[in-house]
Amino acid sequence: MARTRVGIINITGYIGIDLARILLRHPEIEVVSATGRSAAGKRLSEVFPHMTSADLVIQSDLDVPVDLVFSAMPHKASAEVCEPLLAQGIKVVDVSADFRVKSIEEYESWYEVVHPCPQLLKSAVYGLPELHREEIRHANLVANPGCYPTGALLALAPALSCGMFDGDIIIDSKSGVSGAGRSLTLTTHYAECNESVAAYAIGGHRHLAEIRQECRLLNDQVSEVLFVPHLIPMTRGILSVCYMRLSQEWIGQGADPQKRLVTEYQEFYRSSPFVEVVESPPATKHVWGSNYCHLFPQYDARTSRLLVISAIDNLVKGGAGEAVQNMNLMLGFEETCGLNALPVYP
Amino acid sequence: MARTRVGIINITGYIGIDLARILLRHPEIEVVSATGRSAAGKRLSEVFPHMTSADLVIQSDLDVPVDLVFSAMPHKASAEVCEPLLAQGIKVVDVSADFRVKSIEEYESWYEVVHPCPQLLKSAVYGLPELHREEIRHANLVANPGCYPTGALLALAPALSCGMFDGDIIIDSKSGVSGAGRSLTLTTHYAECNESVAAYAIGGHRHLAEIRQECRLLNDQVSEVLFVPHLIPMTRGILSVCYMRLSQEWIGQGADPQKRLVTEYQEFYRSSPFVEVVESPPATKHVWGSNYCHLFPQYDARTSRLLVISAIDNLVKGGAGEAVQNMNLMLGFEETCGLNALPVYP
Amino acid sequence: MARTRVGIINITGYIGIDLARILLRHPEIEVVSATGRSAAGKRLSEVFPHMTSADLVIQSDLDVPVDLVFSAMPHKASAEVCEPLLAQGIKVVDVSADFRVKSIEEYESWYEVVHPCPQLLKSAVYGLPELHREEIRHANLVANPGCYPTGALLALAPALSCGMFDGDIIIDSKSGVSGAGRSLTLTTHYAECNESVAAYAIGGHRHLAEIRQECRLLNDQVSEVLFVPHLIPMTRGILSVCYMRLSQEWIGQGADPQKRLVTEYQEFYRSSPFVEVVESPPATKHVWGSNYCHLFPQYDARTSRLLVISAIDNLVKGGAGEAVQNMNLMLGFEETCGLNALPVYP
Amino acid sequence: MARTRVGIINITGYIGIDLARILLRHPEIEVVSATGRSAAGKRLSEVFPHMTSADLVIQSDLDVPVDLVFSAMPHKASAEVCEPLLAQGIKVVDVSADFRVKSIEEYESWYEVVHPCPQLLKSAVYGLPELHREEIRHANLVANPGCYPTGALLALAPALSCGMFDGDIIIDSKSGVSGAGRSLTLTTHYAECNESVAAYAIGGHRHLAEIRQECRLLNDQVSEVLFVPHLIPMTRGILSVCYMRLSQEWIGQGADPQKRLVTEYQEFYRSSPFVEVVESPPATKHVWGSNYCHLFPQYDARTSRLLVISAIDNLVKGGAGEAVQNMNLMLGFEETCGLNALPVYP
Repeated sequence: MARTRVGIINITGYIGIDLARILLRHPEIEVVSATGRSAAGKRLSEVFPHMTSADLVIQSDLDVPVDLVFSAMPHKASAEVCEPLLAQGIKVVDVSADFRVKSIEEYESWYEVVHPCPQLLKSAVYGLPELHREEIRHANLVANPGCYPTGALLALAPALSCGMFDGDIIIDSKSGVSGAGRSLTLTTHYAECNESVAAYAIGGHRHLAEIRQECRLLNDQVSEVLFVPHLIPMTRGILSVCYMRLSQEWIGQGADPQKRLVTEYQEFYRSSPFVEVVESPPATKHVWGSNYCHLFPQYDARTSRLLVISAIDNLVKGGAGEAVQNMNLMLGFEETCGLNALPVYP
Repeated sequence: MARTRVGIINITGYIGIDLARILLRHPEIEVVSATGRSAAGKRLSEVFPHMTSADLVIQSDLDVPVDLVFSAMPHKASAEVCEPLLAQGIKVVDVSADFRVKSIEEYESWYEVVHPCPQLLKSAVYGLPELHREEIRHANLVANPGCYPTGALLALAPALSCGMFDGDIIIDSKSGVSGAGRSLTLTTHYAECNESVAAYAIGGHRHLAEIRQECRLLNDQVSEVLFVPHLIPMTRGILSVCYMRLSQEWIGQGADPQKRLVTEYQEFYRSSPFVEVVESPPATKHVWGSNYCHLFPQYDARTSRLLVISAIDNLVKGGAGEAVQNMNLMLGFEETCGLNALPVYP
Repeated sequence: MARTRVGIINITGYIGIDLARILLRHPEIEVVSATGRSAAGKRLSEVFPHMTSADLVIQSDLDVPVDLVFSAMPHKASAEVCEPLLAQGIKVVDVSADFRVKSIEEYESWYEVVHPCPQLLKSAVYGLPELHREEIRHANLVANPGCYPTGALLALAPALSCGMFDGDIIIDSKSGVSGAGRSLTLTTHYAECNESVAAYAIGGHRHLAEIRQECRLLNDQVSEVLFVPHLIPMTRGILSVCYMRLSQEWIGQGADPQKRLVTEYQEFYRSSPFVEVVESPPATKHVWGSNYCHLFPQYDARTSRLLVISAIDNLVKGGAGEAVQNMNLMLGFEETCGLNALPVYP
Repeated sequence: MARTRVGIINITGYIGIDLARILLRHPEIEVVSATGRSAAGKRLSEVFPHMTSADLVIQSDLDVPVDLVFSAMPHKASAEVCEPLLAQGIKVVDVSADFRVKSIEEYESWYEVVHPCPQLLKSAVYGLPELHREEIRHANLVANPGCYPTGALLALAPALSCGMFDGDIIIDSKSGVSGAGRSLTLTTHYAECNESVAAYAIGGHRHLAEIRQECRLLNDQVSEVLFVPHLIPMTRGILSVCYMRLSQEWIGQGADPQKRLVTEYQEFYRSSPFVEVVESPPATKHVWGSNYCHLFPQYDARTSRLLVISAIDNLVKGGAGEAVQNMNLMLGFEETCGLNALPVYP
């Protein structure tokens, strides 16, 4: 049987090339075209020697018919390239930020551009399968979440969905350097960021917009969210520690808050094959190279607070893997198809 | 003029050997004896080849008269070894936890041992020079702070000392692996902790006791403190992000909260040569190998919260350097004597 | 159709757990039992949280019938455990050094033990598929090569097999820290080996025995081999640079030595799916997490020398992946079956 | 007494800023001016926050009279800026490659530029103090060696200076990433070079010219030298392993070649305060942040070869520290003045 034909727009960034890694081994689809602006005409292995065994040639534009496209373009450019594809009936998973934030004002204020096709926002689905699985199955345009929002929202969602939450959210996230992409900056120059840790975007990080949007969808009591990201000297992984206040009502509901908490989290993700509620504080290394998310909810008796820690691989569950998970849902494949590689450890 | 005679007890741990590095180049003192249990009889360079140019022989016990001793023994053993030295009139800087916590109950509950000499607790001074400088000058026994408390308390102190604070403290700290010491554990095995980040001691870290004690000395409104430490894949450095609520009263006092905040912090540390209030979020690399602490206070208008970030080298300002700073005060030297090395960057 | 039943002896080391990672996703076999001495009775995820999605329980001994066993025991203990299995007709891939070196004297001199079953040495096949593919297909006992020998021999073999070589071999290898295993040592303590590089085993490394044995099988002109391994601050990967003298005769045979060289190497590995002759100096990152070996042969006109650089993942092509490749050959599966994951980059 | 007045040209690279770190604490000199092209007008701490405690303002040109200048400009530009300074009687330590190679042909062929002032080459002294100490004392222009040549030549010099050497040299060097400078490249982008090792400049590295020049000055039997540098995932340090053949004559001269070897090396460096002949294979971490070089000579009985391993900090002994050591000699200070900081470990 003919495989579904898939294209990758902008294969030369880290999300693009990780999409290629996963899709070239996916049993149900075929990568029939891949584009990359500056590298058009080159073999993939000239740009990425680890792809020596793949003999793809990078195109300037999609050059053959496709059924579904992943766009890994930068924001704004991505919306511009996706619009005509959608008009032709091609399904799109957009890895950029263009269709994540429903409020045009919010989007334009954080990204400082005019949105090229606001009319598409309404039908776009926020592609966090654990929260929007059914909508994704029927979507033509899926907005793949940011890496930080993926980890943070998976940690927050169960607490926000039941009555335990009391209005106050702080998210302290630690990301590997690959999250900053392949473009050269002093911040990601080896000698500058190695053996060092620093917080950044203290005044407000763009991902805050989609975090708040999804939090409020889950619980309209959420007022402000404080989100502080850090750069950590490692390549892959995001660890997010979420600090929430528990309502006195919920605490008073029963004898063993920690046990109730774990049960809530396990129940919430019972049908989500990639989320694991674990028994000890997770390390990003425990999910390295895989699509898994490890979650650790903890009741802090001293302060009556709730801590939830999540660990993901920012380029897989926080990027390319999640995009393929969305594709699987959109095309009616098994949700885990092509994504069942176990983490590479150590 | 004869130099002051100094001894180091347990030179073979990371704090011990960093004390040696600093003290062997200190212009006012002479290291006349150094002990190390398992390594007694060896030349220092056999245990630490980077010390090839120092021809010290490690002793089993202090073998010559000294004026001041640094004890880098583990807790309990340290108090036991310090007590007779103090009785002989020798000044002591104790790097262990034995004399930091004034409450015997707190100490015994966190450290799970019986305190060997509780009678010394009263005269011991908590050795954070920026908070207790005058007491340290007159002390015979100084309890050198833990690495996390040093960074956290320097970040918190100005806010707690004026009217801006409103009862709620979360400290999210990221430490390099050397903080876990030289003893072998799976957690600090290279292949296990490299390329990974994880939180630990979620149920409560021992350093919480001294953090709370000093916070409450500064401000008796402090109720509970939530402290979450992380292990980061780097050798040296601690970054602490402290989240506090600002009182509405303080926010209402004037037009530019960020500016007032910075002024408070600068004023507080005007006479502290090693604390720098910096203009952009600090990185631990900016203080690597030095006794400096970089502080970055930030008013978050969205949530009316106060964030303060501190960066230190955990083995210098959070260990050996701070101990030498205490010695300088105790012996009447310049506070910066032997400690003015600039950070090694990159 | 029933899958082939496979057991893993000693799953709790790094080769053992990487075997599990690959075998649990292998389409033709089923892991029916896995042992681990100290961890017997525990779920795999208690020892390795990254294996949370696998619900294997670690046994003290193989508890059900198997068709093929991987032994990842230490040397000597491995031979002892393999002997009775072979007697029962179970095929064995031995990851230890016990059956690699044909000379009992060499083995006993390097490993300083008495070989427990020397009678098995004759039928054991050295499991480097690129050199011994046909023998492996018919073997019951395959000795999986050491990590360094895999990289070095793949780099040397083509040169030794034709007339270009002139008697002189130096191998300078750089290994990630996981090669030293999961047992705790000061050498592999994070703070000691991070941000540092050092050579070790200067007087002679055990892997020299198998390197020389296989070199001499390929070319009886090989006299001494100088092999210097290094520990590098990274988790996975071995880069080996092999320095050889080229015979004047070979140099004189034609106009473009570099081109002839590349052709020789390409020809030699034409039927080897995991060896790639690449066009620029390889980096270990280009094969990370995969079973590929990248080879780069270079003629140095200034010195008339031949350099060949090889890059492998020490735990995959230099360990678990190669073992599965051997299993595939022994059981008649496709050589690449279960091993076609692309490298994880970056 | 007035201190000697010193200027730094191009303080904004890694050698420039490490010069500042050392010179700002040097007891005999004063840094009166420092330039940096793109950063002129900024405070040093704006470009390098770790320099917060230094309140230097970066100039576009040296703006006050100086007695000695360090030039850390790129090659060619450096010669152009040094020439007029020398004409004014100002002493110069040039950190660039411009005055290292005596042969204009060699220089112009490797660096692919026309030398701007070849007439200065004759009086320039190659600034490796251990080989040219007396000439440096009387020089006005000192060419500070490259980082690789410093490590390699210190390893090779004793062997080349006595009768033990037999014509054949291979140098396999491993460098930290800071050696590639502060300019942004894909090669030094964190996610690309972290967790990876690769050789580079296989066709010939520029530093080969000065290595060969100095080797031949020491021993005119040296024919070709093969030099292969590698990039290692760490910030600072170079480890060089030098492989040489020993003459049969030297081997036959006495009973214990290893002992004689060590004695030769110790004798050769008896008056060199920064070179230590060590008893176990050195690690770059053993000299981190210091001006020391650790040397380990080893006789390999199996192959009758000589191995010598050297470890340096590429930015200190291989850069800024060596430059200050040269300044000390040129100005008549103690050779170790301002350079006696012990290595920072771990």
